[in-house]
Amino acid sequence: MKLRSALSVKSRREEVEKETRVLLTNIGTFSVDENVASKRNCENMIGVAQVPLGIAGPLALLTVKGELLNVYLPLATTEGALVASVSRGCKAITESGGAGVDSYRVGATRGPVFKVKNLHESDVFNKFLEEHFESLQKITKTTSNHLTLTKYMDRGVGRYRYVRFVFDTEDAMGMNMVTIATQKLVEYIELHTSSRCISLAGNYDVDKKPSWLNVIEGRGIKAWAEVTLPSKILKDVLKTTAQKFYDVWLSKCMIGSAMAGSMAFNAQFANIIAAVFLATGQDLGHVGEASLGVTTAEVVNGKDLYVSIYLPDLMVGIVGGGTGLATQKEALSIVRAANSKQFAEIIAGAVLAGEISLLASLSEGTLAKAHQELARGKR
Amino acid sequence: MKLRSALSVKSRREEVEKETRVLLTNIGTFSVDENVASKRNCENMIGVAQVPLGIAGPLALLTVKGELLNVYLPLATTEGALVASVSRGCKAITESGGAGVDSYRVGATRGPVFKVKNLHESDVFNKFLEEHFESLQKITKTTSNHLTLTKYMDRGVGRYRYVRFVFDTEDAMGMNMVTIATQKLVEYIELHTSSRCISLAGNYDVDKKPSWLNVIEGRGIKAWAEVTLPSKILKDVLKTTAQKFYDVWLSKCMIGSAMAGSMAFNAQFANIIAAVFLATGQDLGHVGEASLGVTTAEVVNGKDLYVSIYLPDLMVGIVGGGTGLATQKEALSIVRAANSKQFAEIIAGAVLAGEISLLASLSEGTLAKAHQELARGKR
Amino acid sequence: MKLRSALSVKSRREEVEKETRVLLTNIGTFSVDENVASKRNCENMIGVAQVPLGIAGPLALLTVKGELLNVYLPLATTEGALVASVSRGCKAITESGGAGVDSYRVGATRGPVFKVKNLHESDVFNKFLEEHFESLQKITKTTSNHLTLTKYMDRGVGRYRYVRFVFDTEDAMGMNMVTIATQKLVEYIELHTSSRCISLAGNYDVDKKPSWLNVIEGRGIKAWAEVTLPSKILKDVLKTTAQKFYDVWLSKCMIGSAMAGSMAFNAQFANIIAAVFLATGQDLGHVGEASLGVTTAEVVNGKDLYVSIYLPDLMVGIVGGGTGLATQKEALSIVRAANSKQFAEIIAGAVLAGEISLLASLSEGTLAKAHQELARGKR
Amino acid sequence: MKLRSALSVKSRREEVEKETRVLLTNIGTFSVDENVASKRNCENMIGVAQVPLGIAGPLALLTVKGELLNVYLPLATTEGALVASVSRGCKAITESGGAGVDSYRVGATRGPVFKVKNLHESDVFNKFLEEHFESLQKITKTTSNHLTLTKYMDRGVGRYRYVRFVFDTEDAMGMNMVTIATQKLVEYIELHTSSRCISLAGNYDVDKKPSWLNVIEGRGIKAWAEVTLPSKILKDVLKTTAQKFYDVWLSKCMIGSAMAGSMAFNAQFANIIAAVFLATGQDLGHVGEASLGVTTAEVVNGKDLYVSIYLPDLMVGIVGGGTGLATQKEALSIVRAANSKQFAEIIAGAVLAGEISLLASLSEGTLAKAHQELARGKR
Repeated sequence: MKLRSALSVKSRREEVEKETRVLLTNIGTFSVDENVASKRNCENMIGVAQVPLGIAGPLALLTVKGELLNVYLPLATTEGALVASVSRGCKAITESGGAGVDSYRVGATRGPVFKVKNLHESDVFNKFLEEHFESLQKITKTTSNHLTLTKYMDRGVGRYRYVRFVFDTEDAMGMNMVTIATQKLVEYIELHTSSRCISLAGNYDVDKKPSWLNVIEGRGIKAWAEVTLPSKILKDVLKTTAQKFYDVWLSKCMIGSAMAGSMAFNAQFANIIAAVFLATGQDLGHVGEASLGVTTAEVVNGKDLYVSIYLPDLMVGIVGGGTGLATQKEALSIVRAANSKQFAEIIAGAVLAGEISLLASLSEGTLAKAHQELARGKR
Repeated sequence: MKLRSALSVKSRREEVEKETRVLLTNIGTFSVDENVASKRNCENMIGVAQVPLGIAGPLALLTVKGELLNVYLPLATTEGALVASVSRGCKAITESGGAGVDSYRVGATRGPVFKVKNLHESDVFNKFLEEHFESLQKITKTTSNHLTLTKYMDRGVGRYRYVRFVFDTEDAMGMNMVTIATQKLVEYIELHTSSRCISLAGNYDVDKKPSWLNVIEGRGIKAWAEVTLPSKILKDVLKTTAQKFYDVWLSKCMIGSAMAGSMAFNAQFANIIAAVFLATGQDLGHVGEASLGVTTAEVVNGKDLYVSIYLPDLMVGIVGGGTGLATQKEALSIVRAANSKQFAEIIAGAVLAGEISLLASLSEGTLAKAHQELARGKR
Repeated sequence: MKLRSALSVKSRREEVEKETRVLLTNIGTFSVDENVASKRNCENMIGVAQVPLGIAGPLALLTVKGELLNVYLPLATTEGALVASVSRGCKAITESGGAGVDSYRVGATRGPVFKVKNLHESDVFNKFLEEHFESLQKITKTTSNHLTLTKYMDRGVGRYRYVRFVFDTEDAMGMNMVTIATQKLVEYIELHTSSRCISLAGNYDVDKKPSWLNVIEGRGIKAWAEVTLPSKILKDVLKTTAQKFYDVWLSKCMIGSAMAGSMAFNAQFANIIAAVFLATGQDLGHVGEASLGVTTAEVVNGKDLYVSIYLPDLMVGIVGGGTGLATQKEALSIVRAANSKQFAEIIAGAVLAGEISLLASLSEGTLAKAHQELARGKR
Repeated sequence: MKLRSALSVKSRREEVEKETRVLLTNIGTFSVDENVASKRNCENMIGVAQVPLGIAGPLALLTVKGELLNVYLPLATTEGALVASVSRGCKAITESGGAGVDSYRVGATRGPVFKVKNLHESDVFNKFLEEHFESLQKITKTTSNHLTLTKYMDRGVGRYRYVRFVFDTEDAMGMNMVTIATQKLVEYIELHTSSRCISLAGNYDVDKKPSWLNVIEGRGIKAWAEVTLPSKILKDVLKTTAQKFYDVWLSKCMIGSAMAGSMAFNAQFANIIAAVFLATGQDLGHVGEASLGVTTAEVVNGKDLYVSIYLPDLMVGIVGGGTGLATQKEALSIVRAANSKQFAEIIAGAVLAGEISLLASLSEGTLAKAHQELARGKR
């Protein structure tokens, strides 16, 4: 079989069915607009993957500016217990008066690598960027009205120069426009210096790879969430105590991660990130970097519990990419984020809920029980 | 709104529609068996996320044992250009005679953390595990016929002991059964030693977090793929040369990743991993760790190109979890993997295809062009 | 000036004096046996560096086997406050009844890298090592009576195979003999397989570089120390409280290191390691890897303090290398370690003393004060 | 024995001799001014450690500004073959016309950790630093004329704020004055915000621990060196070829380090750093962080070899600390660095020489031979 790109989704699916002798009835059941999707989102489209979508919440959030949000979280997942877990965390948070959230836009990054002749040319290159930053900003603007080059950092090693351009992409995740703009910047730099760009993306972005550069500098939007859980809620909703929760947090998220050479000092950021990303049309290639970050816990007044989470590397948007697809659009409407920063803060709240629920569960020894019931189909 | 767990998917969706004033028509369009999915995969289910599913291939693979596979790859994604990119890589590989693949089962892991009184008790604990390994294996067997405890490693720091149990989970990814078994092991150990288990999962698994422990020890299944691309195919299919490709690889995947403190020395493992995982019902929380690994490249005979990829940490299965869902099952049928090891080898082949295509594209400077066409909807 | 290797130390020093017009009177003042030193330790020798050597202690240590040691610590350093700091830690430990210590010999490692033709040959290589391990052990024995090959691990990526041979080097640090033995092993392997050794040392040792491989697998000797400090000693000797100490430890050694992408989760291992290594003739190139490791702290009974340290990567010895030099030999005699394992345990005790003193100092806010007095020469 | 701080060096040594029954004749042989050393460098001083000091060079270096330096390198070490190895590297470099060197002053850092009430206060804290940076600069100036606060970065997680103050310390390594200044800054910040400083040093410095923060942001002085070695010199001086050298570099420094989770992508930075630091009175606790960095290699014209090294984290000085001691002062006079930046460039040249020699040796398979001769005392 030669897959022909000109085919309709249906014809292509039929070809695959014929070739593989597999009936693709379910893959063929969808309401997505295949004309758009097959052009913008997925070549050689034969249908869709359907992933169960559950809802958690309500989750009460308070922004640093004093705004109160009451959100529902759409979570697409195939892993039993996840939605229930986040729901429990939402309940604990909301009954404690809501989670404080905050965020900071770092910006989307693209990191081309250049080659120069020697250390002296490396110095010249360095100065060129410094002196022509405004020109680079102007060039960026010509590629999109929604794009601003805000800063850059660069590092030299041998004859290589790694540049990390940082852009404000407004409400889009923006890797597409950032790539297009960087191409223009690269052409300008090559024209005016003796350097040669070896690769438009030199892993100094760092796109879709867990990296300390992203953790330390941040990427996309950084977001935080925090809550203080009173002992009563710890007992009634989470069936645990502040001290037990704290002991699990310290031994697992801190010392355990340190012993394992982990880049993530948390319990299950990845699960919540993946489920929200999938539901709302984010790029799932970013799940790894978005799952980095730190959870902190603290026993307060001897019996209450302060918990916080920090997400340094959220590449998310509410327009563009997969956000325009039918089900993803509906899911985003459920979230009702005013802009991408607020969306990041809501994700932070969801991640906090996940941490609270799982760490509480581990502290009272019921993780296995939950899995056992799942295995037996008891839920 | 209080979400009631007893509701049907439809009633719950209607409640959410009422509460959020969003019509969820598309989320409500699906063929998944909601009775199974809402019990096993997703609580508070209100419908599904539909993600475009494309097909790449055929991809010719040769196992170390000499078996020849010819596979099609189902890829679910919302990011335009990905399926086209993998397809091009498949074409280059297949026309070069196919990729060699290999795999090794490390096993699924669960890493409880225990607390003991002091260094002396830590020593006693250590010896207990050594001397009672067979008992631990027997206990494991009582929890599932499909589960074997194959080995463990443990490390002590202060009064903590981090144990990493390694299990053969056959064709399942297996975190569920592994968690249940570990609970039993923990109970046995607590009964016979003075230790106390603080957390069933102490981040020494390391589950769903990028970690050097997983890279160095491996987790789930390790897989490799390699191919030598003749200069003619480099030119005709990939529009590049061996040297140009090599230069991008070295500056990006090696030196770039080293400069960025990245744990992944590759170009875009994450994109392919996410798309295959989503299509075939794998746990998307594992995308981060599964995307770790190394790409190598080498100019051969001055003009041909050897390329390889190594995936040290693939937590995948062909039964259990999300693999039983309607569309995921069909996608797995397309893949036709004989078992989970072969499935890992096919994923390795797909990842190799993705690396080849992206690195080639970067080397000829057409990445931005592809994105530009997408942005203009030209594809 | 051409430095001539045949010259005596004095003549060479005079040549350097003439060439650089610098009088080297002090460098020329020493009691080291220049005939031995210039052959075994330092080519082109012109004299010595004199580094102030102080003494800390007594430090009471209890081994896991119940042996009580009472040791003095020779510390060579140019950094004021260090010896005083360690002394204070020793006092706190000793007055608390001594520190528990333990150790485990992992072994010295050498990690050659081989190249094979493809994945299939990689498999064959892998099996060869498995099946010929005894032969490799025998070959090792022929190179030295004091050397035993105890195990190996190997990893493949592309056409590369990284092997990590692990040796028992008895009381020597042993990199010299390990290198000689590995050369023989490599020759044997090359003779019987189709592989080619690219480098006798392929950074899979990992020698003198901080690495997760060494932390996770251990290298040389792993060592631990722990102590519980009663509140009275915290107050009288360390001028702090358990809680204040704990707060510094958590925010600095755990969360601070996590935020900084540090490979070391401690306060000042490096200072003590460097001072002991220098005094006792260890290889200072190993300071970086030996300084990796984790400090833990815990408030006990609401007011006392448990503190522990873990050193996963101590490449040390009491014979060979620099240990035979005049002053180093005397310093080792002060330490009176029965063997290299006990030496590692004593180092662990010293490192614990350093952690206790610095963290206490930070917790009471007197670090700057100590430096200020130094700056004014008041001490 | 109670060590009494009021004793003279001689009396204390005699007490130790009596207590340990070890004659300390050699430790007692020195020309260092004990009155100064025992006050400024080493408490409880009993004498000195004598470490053989050899000389390598001449080494020709060219600064980016076009200045030509011809330097000799004092290297203090107990590890045979090191001075010879560096000497050979110097010869290869000098005969190739010298190494290009460059450097950049990042500055010494101190990283206090503060605690605030919640995310909102964290925001307020953040703004306070932004708005009062000039005040912080003025306060810094009051502590020393030789100190300038040049910038800071800060990061928040939960209720913690990690601040990294960066200072220009002129020709001193400067940790002492930086600590004193930071104490003043902290007092000012505590006075004007609701924050509390938990620790003056919160591992966000990151002092004496290998960390990605230091690699990415740089610390102290960053330095580079590069050279192109003609094939004739590769053959005559280094007994190897460009390709062989390159193969070792790629498999060891790049892929090997990547596989091992190493933070250092080089061959033996640590050895040269330790030997120069010891000879010139640098703080040996900084050996670990100073040894981080990347070596690059490239075959040029099919037969010549470009080699470079990059040191991101050199905490060095030519005044203060151990630089004023008798032998260290003489060693620094041999180096003749105009200032600390030039000193860093000379260290970079030395490190490059070490890399070239060791990688060449590994590529021709003579590492073991050198060690064997040492073992037999043949050198």
